[in-house]
Order: sequence, then structure tokens, then C-alpha cells
Amino acid sequence: MRQILLAGGIALALLACSPRAEQAGAPAAGSSVSALMQARKLAEPDVTAALKTYTPTGVHDEYLMFSSGGHSGQVLVVGLPSMRLLKVIAVFTPEPWQGYGYGDQTDALLASGNRNGQTLAWADTHHPALSETAGDYDGKFLFIGDKANARLAVIDLKDFVTKQIVASNLIESDHGAAFVTPNTDYVIEPTQYPAPLGGGYVPIEEYNEKYRGAVLFWKFDRSKGKLDPAAAFAIEVPPYGQDLADAGKLASSGFAFVNSFNTERAWGGTMEGNPPLESGASQNDTDFLHVIDWKKAEAAVAAGKAETINGMRVLRLPVAIAEGVLHFIPEPKSPHGVDVTPDGKDIVVSGKLDTHATIYSFEKVKALIDQKKYVGSDPYGVPILPFEEAIRAQVEIGLGPLHTQFDDQGNAYTSLFLESKVAKWNVAEARVLEKIPAHYNVGHIAAAEGDTVSPDGRFLVMIDKWALDRFAGVGPLLPQNMQLVDIASAPMQLLYDMPVPIGEPHYAQIIKADKLAPIDIYTPVGFNPVTDTKDPEAVEAEQERIERRADGVHVYMTAVRSHFRPDIVRVKEGENVHIHLTNVEQAKDATHGFAIGSHNVNVSIEPGEHANITFVAKRSGVFPMYCTEFCSALHLEMAGYLLVEPN
Amino acid sequence: MRQILLAGGIALALLACSPRAEQAGAPAAGSSVSALMQARKLAEPDVTAALKTYTPTGVHDEYLMFSSGGHSGQVLVVGLPSMRLLKVIAVFTPEPWQGYGYGDQTDALLASGNRNGQTLAWADTHHPALSETAGDYDGKFLFIGDKANARLAVIDLKDFVTKQIVASNLIESDHGAAFVTPNTDYVIEPTQYPAPLGGGYVPIEEYNEKYRGAVLFWKFDRSKGKLDPAAAFAIEVPPYGQDLADAGKLASSGFAFVNSFNTERAWGGTMEGNPPLESGASQNDTDFLHVIDWKKAEAAVAAGKAETINGMRVLRLPVAIAEGVLHFIPEPKSPHGVDVTPDGKDIVVSGKLDTHATIYSFEKVKALIDQKKYVGSDPYGVPILPFEEAIRAQVEIGLGPLHTQFDDQGNAYTSLFLESKVAKWNVAEARVLEKIPAHYNVGHIAAAEGDTVSPDGRFLVMIDKWALDRFAGVGPLLPQNMQLVDIASAPMQLLYDMPVPIGEPHYAQIIKADKLAPIDIYTPVGFNPVTDTKDPEAVEAEQERIERRADGVHVYMTAVRSHFRPDIVRVKEGENVHIHLTNVEQAKDATHGFAIGSHNVNVSIEPGEHANITFVAKRSGVFPMYCTEFCSALHLEMAGYLLVEPN
Repeated sequence: MRQILLAGGIALALLACSPRAEQAGAPAAGSSVSALMQARKLAEPDVTAALKTYTPTGVHDEYLMFSSGGHSGQVLVVGLPSMRLLKVIAVFTPEPWQGYGYGDQTDALLASGNRNGQTLAWADTHHPALSETAGDYDGKFLFIGDKANARLAVIDLKDFVTKQIVASNLIESDHGAAFVTPNTDYVIEPTQYPAPLGGGYVPIEEYNEKYRGAVLFWKFDRSKGKLDPAAAFAIEVPPYGQDLADAGKLASSGFAFVNSFNTERAWGGTMEGNPPLESGASQNDTDFLHVIDWKKAEAAVAAGKAETINGMRVLRLPVAIAEGVLHFIPEPKSPHGVDVTPDGKDIVVSGKLDTHATIYSFEKVKALIDQKKYVGSDPYGVPILPFEEAIRAQVEIGLGPLHTQFDDQGNAYTSLFLESKVAKWNVAEARVLEKIPAHYNVGHIAAAEGDTVSPDGRFLVMIDKWALDRFAGVGPLLPQNMQLVDIASAPMQLLYDMPVPIGEPHYAQIIKADKLAPIDIYTPVGFNPVTDTKDPEAVEAEQERIERRADGVHVYMTAVRSHFRPDIVRVKEGENVHIHLTNVEQAKDATHGFAIGSHNVNVSIEPGEHANITFVAKRSGVFPMYCTEFCSALHLEMAGYLLVEPN
Repeated sequence: MRQILLAGGIALALLACSPRAEQAGAPAAGSSVSALMQARKLAEPDVTAALKTYTPTGVHDEYLMFSSGGHSGQVLVVGLPSMRLLKVIAVFTPEPWQGYGYGDQTDALLASGNRNGQTLAWADTHHPALSETAGDYDGKFLFIGDKANARLAVIDLKDFVTKQIVASNLIESDHGAAFVTPNTDYVIEPTQYPAPLGGGYVPIEEYNEKYRGAVLFWKFDRSKGKLDPAAAFAIEVPPYGQDLADAGKLASSGFAFVNSFNTERAWGGTMEGNPPLESGASQNDTDFLHVIDWKKAEAAVAAGKAETINGMRVLRLPVAIAEGVLHFIPEPKSPHGVDVTPDGKDIVVSGKLDTHATIYSFEKVKALIDQKKYVGSDPYGVPILPFEEAIRAQVEIGLGPLHTQFDDQGNAYTSLFLESKVAKWNVAEARVLEKIPAHYNVGHIAAAEGDTVSPDGRFLVMIDKWALDRFAGVGPLLPQNMQLVDIASAPMQLLYDMPVPIGEPHYAQIIKADKLAPIDIYTPVGFNPVTDTKDPEAVEAEQERIERRADGVHVYMTAVRSHFRPDIVRVKEGENVHIHLTNVEQAKDATHGFAIGSHNVNVSIEPGEHANITFVAKRSGVFPMYCTEFCSALHLEMAGYLLVEPN
């Protein structure tokens, strides 16, 4: 009871002396910190946590976190410190309420991500990467990779809309995607599970000889806001199960670092007499950190030394070796995370079956490369640098270390999956300072501005894989748990548990909100967010019409509170119907929806937005059309009919 | 500054005297309520709001709110008072990370909701209804309607999984669905936009003669947890645009009440010389409250007086009139909400173009019906009861009143869309007590246990249609805003703004969390949540196998940390592949995913769950299969290959 007594007697007066206080209503009579603590069984850390995170109505969050939506295929946008979900960005998966995948442009966008003619309606989004300028998040673009189908997407942070999906047919899965070089020249996408490069069947018994990984470098054209597949290239790597990646910065600019976790080259086959992959891949004490000189790779590709495989220019292994593009350094054991320090001088690797964080010195690594000081080569001829001479220190950090983030005080934070903790440690001193529990099984962690050359040192989010007992029961499928930690306080303080019931967020990046300047409405009216320009079929008020052409009925329609015009559409059974729909409003938040019953049609049109919808009126009948966003008092009356006359 | 001074100097000591305090880490040195208020510019109401809502790690929310997910097609589960999203229940829309719509059973479930052969991959969910026993939420089932396609779904709260989707081909859209009778005998679904009953084309010029609404009563079989379409019936009603519904309870048991908003029978046609629906439907000073004696309707149907239209038994209008099933009472003006008081004695109606809440007395209504005291009949012959003699009072309540909820003190709360406020008023005294601002354009409101015979009077959630400036910018498509209000305090206090970026929540119901008892794992192992029984293809450990049959390759596979068995699947190009996959774990939260690259395959299997997946191996190649839920330290190694050999 002591904590209650300490805060006891602090009755908060019935004041309404600020505009917000007035808005919010005065507190209840008799409310006090101590009474509320008692009533809700809050301890003192709970009170400080509440006051560090509570964000009153109308107050905006200071940071935005862009999180992978895991196997939802989307990206989640969360405000910090309130830990409120602000947006689900539709990326790889249809999202009906946004009309994503329910109109011509978004259909085409999603289809552009199909692989070999196979429609793909989901993804496993893993690593979001904010665009950078000089190693700092610039708030312009976001990239996200799809592990399941080896794809990348580009999201424009002007309107938080997905603009591009690219799939290379070189590889079959990725993991460490996306990571960007410090000026976003390239977006990096390494393979996860090896396969024959360029696709096609090869017996798995020829795994060592013919299965490969690759590290893809997708050129980003900032002026167009698009990846340029024609300017992309890849570096072939051995079939080791490449994993996470990070780009060098400042001191290590021009380099990229990629983990691997299965240098044993196990591939399972338990029912065929082999050990399971989980043990087969865990035999070696060390795997290989891949050190890639991407500037040299770029030059070699420019010099015509790449081979084109299924549309992608590839530096084959012998070329990459000969050109000095690729070096290995042993890394203990089954590594998962590789993270470059803000100054670019150190590379921190954690092996999930090791108890250390291993700190490689880029200066030492570079010197070893320059001296060609090798301790041998791997079975594919890749030169191996000596481990002991490449590292600066190892920190005994705990069980199951995975990922590392940084603050502005020279400290690192490493997640410990098996311990369910995050360790804070000093990079220069290579010394653990403290640990904080996670609930439970923390995977990635994300620090505020944590992947930049200047982290903020304010907040850290633990992305926990299991939630177990944290939240009220909602059946066997539990939400994930994201936990907000105050890392500016000493000791660290757990502030908030955010359940995440939308896929399994894998990684996240956190940016200061004031670095973003999203638009509120689309201009000019008739703007198509996917093509990122005014749509040629945009409709102006008073220009609404219905035209019959060879390819069907074209309905040029506007939406404005509280009607569609035209509101009656008469077609014949079997006709193609093309609806060109412009929301002619320019008021913020004046979004309309447009649905047609029994036709699987729904789009969302934001102020100024235009959408095109094509469908076949397969069946005669009377089908209501209506607005699906409650736009006005007469929203229910914002309706009409599609009348399909029989032939 | 006064509010800061009042709480000043209250340094919270560095205490860790409770288990939770220890877990959470001690507060930062120098933390105090006043310092934090100053640093984060919090006013006193913000402090009390924070402490009334903050829910520390591991503490469970006291209430669960089941909210429509609007045009996402899903249901959202939110914890109160923390306002955290705990679950997105997949209902009408594929949800890849849950494997919903990516496996045989959920594919079949979704297909059962198709209308006339049209695949429907979304819905516009509107009114969730918790199952009731004696007028009280019993925590067993949840029903939700799809406005766009006139469908209903049943969710079992044992595991929070959708078990049934039903579509009647009688009507083309609904709105006031779902509402339940006090013992969940029936789930009520009234039409929104009139159309020819049973489908088919009729020129809209014959709207008055041949377009109709209907009020459907779906019989619920509690023992099976399913709606019984064969036992459902409907009552034909005029083409007035029926709207919300509520079932009578206690005093008014056996009755149902349905609004209408377009007794003008306008249907738009602006480009054909007619006024837009929004003005055409707003000419009359009153529309008609539909009073339905569903017990009489049930008896009439049992007596064979219904006509079957496209599979649904319908009491045609003349029969409904003759049997005393249907009466009208004028209701002002363009009504949107109809809500029965907890004691069942009053029916509150709000007309969105009127400034009153109108209180009908069920006792008076019943007496008028019994006396056949009519003031005439509508054009379809439905007898009209006298407005003045049916009402008990009208309350001048404000602009744009929509929906009403109740507390345990005899008060009502009505949302005022145009004023962006909620009015609290006393039902017996018919007198407004106070108003609280909403941000902005509040539609529905939901009170804790608010639709039962015994509301809790604790919390009210305002479901706001516009958010405008409430949250950090995320582009032109803004989240909705759900605002939590403490209605146990006087005056009411706004506690929390929850952004909702998943469809537009339409309505919600709030239940005490301790009324629910969801399971944590599926037993027996091999359970199929959709069929709600052990799957005939369930796989036991050590019984894994691959069988070749006439219909393709059957893979009997288990999942357990950290491998699938078998982990190598060899098939020929063009073969049908059937994967029967059982998660043999029985530990809470030990969920696995199962994805195959480039095949659009992903399922989520909770502990004990079984899933069947069928696909054609269309293309030869090497395709990684892996677990998409981070299940263990060796989760990355929980992988294998689908090897598709060319022919």
C-alpha cells in the first residue's frame, strides 16, 4: 500500500482552465491520483507509464512507427508514445474498405506482383525500410519486402499509398528485405531459402551444386519514386540461407553486410532419413558474415561482368570473388541479426545459438580485405577473413540474442529471445548495463530513429512473438505484443503493451512525425493515387454522362455529399460496365465509398481521388449502389441503383 | 499553470514493491506527476483520463467491445477501458494471416456466402449482436450483418471463429442487421434499399408497385450454433427504406420495431429529371415506425400463411396486415435509430432531420393496436396508429439525433450527428441533463451492456465518422475515431481517442469480459474450427505420410516446434496436391503458420488445429515452404521444400 500513501491526498481540483480540459470535460468529483490508483490497482510505475504515453484528444503523436504487418501482407503505422494504430497501408493484400484490389488501378498494381502467372493475394512482409538521405530517414518513401514470394513494394509517404510492387524471378524467397543504402541508391533484398537461380526444377540432392542464394540491389529512382528493375543487379552467394542485412554508413559507406545461418547446407528430408533442418543447420560453431563491397559490384556490373538470369543481371560467384566484391568472416552461431552502429564503425552480429554480441570493426575488416589476409576459402571459393583479427570485442549478453538497435549515448540494445529480455550495453566498453523483461519471446526491436546515423534515444519497441497471458482471452489465436520502453530513463521503463492482431509484425522503423508532410487531399481533382497523376478518365462536375461504346457502358460519375451523379445506371445483362468515379470534394476527410450489391464492387475515394471500376453485369436484376463511408447526415440517402435488364 | 501547481511536488518514490512494479521497471529518477504533466503538457482531466484507461502489462481489460469493421467485412474486438484492438475476426473477407480464405474449409465457408454465383470477397458489416438469454448478453455467440450483400454471419465466442454465413436471395441489401430477440430465438435482418422481392429485373418506374422491403427473422438453433434457413421467415413491407431495428424485451417481448426513412418512395434519377434521393427522401415530416408482432408472425407462418419466394417463407403484406402482424406509427423525420429501453416499456426514436428524441410508450402502442384505433392506412393498407396517442413524450435534444443507449440510472444517451455531441437525458423526466462533444460527427454510440435489460452505466463509446485533426497525418485516408466516455462520472468525461484504421465501424456492443470463456487451445488435436469438430483428415504424430491417390497427392503433415513432417514434398507438374496439416501442439499461443512460396498458400494453425489445403502444382520448380509465425528460436529453420518435377 505504500505507493498509494505516497501519492495520497492529491485531489485534483475540478478545473477546466485549458481549452483541452474544457473539451474533455472536467474530472469526476473526488477523482485523485491516489483514489484512481487504489480503484484500478495501479502501482507508481503504472502512473508514470500512463502519463508518459497517454495522448489527449487532438494531440498528435511525436513519432510514427512503420511496422511490417507480417503475413497480413500490409504495413502498420503506429503512433508513439500512445501506441495507437493509425493506419493499415494496403500493400500486397486486397483491402476492400480501401478499395485496394477492387478497382482497375489497384488490380493492375497487385497483378504486377504476381509471379509466373500465379495470382498472389497475400505476402509475408518483413523489414520496412524508410528512405534515407545521408544516412538519416528523410520521410519520403517506405520499402517493404515479402519473404514468401521474394517481392518488394514501394510506398509513397506523400499519401501513404503503395505505388509499385516488383518481383524478381531470380530467387524464390527473401528475408533481409528491405534495407537501404545511406542515400537510398539501392534497396537490398537477400535470399532466405536457396533455390536454383532463375527458377526451374533441380533435384534437391544437387543442393550444394545448383541451389544458390543471391543478394539483390534494386536501384531506386527517387525522382520517379520507383525502383528501376532494369538498373537492378544481384550477387550470387552460396546456398547458406542468407538472412538479415544492413548497409554500411559513414565510415563503412559502400559496403553491405548479410548474415547466413545454414552454412551446413542442410535441407531437411526427415522422412528420407535426414536430420530435421533445425538440427542440421545448427551443427557448425560459426556461419559466415557476408561482407559485400557494393560499389565494386556496381562497377563490375557497369563493366559488363554480369550475366543476365531470368531478367536480372547477376554477378556470378567467381566474378564476385575475382572482383573483390564478396568476403566472408566467421560469425557465431546461427546468426539472425546484423546491425551497423550509427557511426558506421562497428558491425554487431548476434548468433541465436551463441550468448554473445560480436562487434566487428569495419576498420579492421577493411584492412584485412586490403591486405588479402585470408584464413582460407569456403567450398565455393569465397575468401574467409580471420575472425579474431576482424572483431573488436565480444559481449557476453545472454540467451538467444537476435537484433540490435542503438541510442544517442553510445549504447546498444539487443533482444534476447530465449531470455525474453532486452539487454542494454555500452558499445565502446562492450559491457552490459542492464536488462528489461519482455512479454514474451522478443524478436526484433526498433528504436526511435534507430537505423540512422543519429538515433534519438527516446523509445524502444520490443516486438514480442508470444503474448500468452497479457491480454483478455480472444480464443486460441492470440494477438502479438508490441511493448514500448522508455530508454531515456535510467533504468529503462516498460511503458505500454500494444496488442497487434494483424499478422505478426516482424520489424519496424520509428521516425519523428515532423519529418513527414503527408497531403490531406488530392489535387487536382481527379487524381489517381496509383498512377500518381490526374486520371485521363477524371470526371468534372456537370460533365457526368453515360456513354455506350464498343467495349461497353462507360459511366462518368461524380461523388459529393450526398449523392452520386448519375445515380441510376441502366445496362443490359452481359454488358461490360466501366465506372469512372471522381470524388469532387476538396474538404479534408470527405471520403466516400462506392459499393454495388452482389457485384463484389467497393472503392474508397478520398477527396479529389478518381477510381475506375470494370465489371460484367452478369445477371439481370436491381442492385443498390451506395456510399460506404458515413459522409453526412444524409449518407444513407447517398444511393442509387444499377438496373440490369435481361436480354 | 494552476493545474500543474496543484499536483506539484508529488515525487513518486523509486519503489518496486509490487510484483508488477518490479516487472515494469522502477520509474525514472525525478519522475513525478507534476513533472510529467509539465513535460507532456497534460491538464488535470488528462491525468484522470490516463489513470482511468491505462492498463498495465498483464492486466486484462474489464470489457470487450465487438465492433463492426464496416467495409473491411470483419469484426473488431476492442478491450475497455484501454481501447486496445485485441482481435480482428475474419468474417466476410479473406484474412491471409489467419489463413481465412486460404484453405479448404474457410474457402467453402466464404463460398457459402456467395450470391447467385457471384464470388463476394468483402462485406459492409453493420450491426453486431451478441446472443442473449432473458435479454442479457450471454457471451456465447455474435451475429453480424452485411449491408452490401444482405448476408448474416454467426461467430462462436468459444474460439472467436466465424462458423456460418447465410444469404437470402429475397432481398438485395440490409441495414438493421443483426438484432436478436431476448432469448436469441431469432436474428432480425430488415432490408435497406427496396428491390423486387426474390431478385430479378423490374423497371424502376414500377418502384411503388413492385419494389419491396422485408424484415427477415432467422431462426437460431443454439444447440448447433447455427442459423436454420429452413426455419426462417420474412414479413413483406412497403418500399420505404427500412433502417434500424430493435427487439422488444420484458414488457414488449414478442415485438420488434423497425424504422423507415423514405416513405416518399424517392429513387433518385437526377440525370433523368428527378430530385436526388437525399432531397426526394426528405419531403415528409414523418416516416413510419414499423411495429411488428413477431409472435403472431411466427404463428401465421406455422399456420401455412406464408408464400415461399426464392427459398424464403414470406408473409405477404395483405396477410401481415390481416393477421395483425404489422402496424405503423408516424415518426419524425427521416429516422435512423430505434432503441427499446432496458425495461422494455419505451421505444426511443430519433429522426435525423428532427431535433427530438421521441419516446413511444409500448403500453400505449399495445392498447391502440388492441383497440384497432387507427388514423388511416398507408398506400399499402398498413394500419397507422395515432402518433400523439402513442408517444409518452418528446425531448428537444439537438441537431441530427441518431442513436440512443442507456445506463443503469434511468438515463439515455443520444448521439447528435450534426452537433457532434452526445446528449445525456433522463428517460422518465424526458429532460436533457448534459452534453459532451464528439470529434467529430458521431454516428452510433455503444454503452457497456447497453442493449440488455441491465446496462452497466460505466462506459460509452462514441463511434465518430470523421477524425479530421485528431491524429498525426497519414495521408488523405484518415482513420475513424472511437471515443471512450466515462458515464459513471458527473459530468461525463472524455477518456480516450482510439483511431480505427480498419473500415468504418458502424455499431458495436460492449460486454463484461468475465461473461466470456474462450478456449486457449483446440482439443482434441486435429480439430477443425470451421466444421467445429475433429477433422477426418487429422494427422497424428508418427502417422505422417504421403499418399498418391486418383485425386492427387495427399500429404499428411504435422507441425511442432520447430519442424514440419514431412518437410520435403515431391510432386509432378500439374498434380493436385492436398495438404492435411495438424498442429500437434497443446501449449497456449503455440501457433504455426504454413506458407508455400509463389503458390498463394498460407494457413494459420493454432494449437491442436487442423487445416486442409488443396492446390495444383502448376509450374515445375523448387518452392520453399516455411512457418510464418515466429514460434521458437529455430523458427527460421522450420522450413522445407515443395519440389515440382517437370513432366
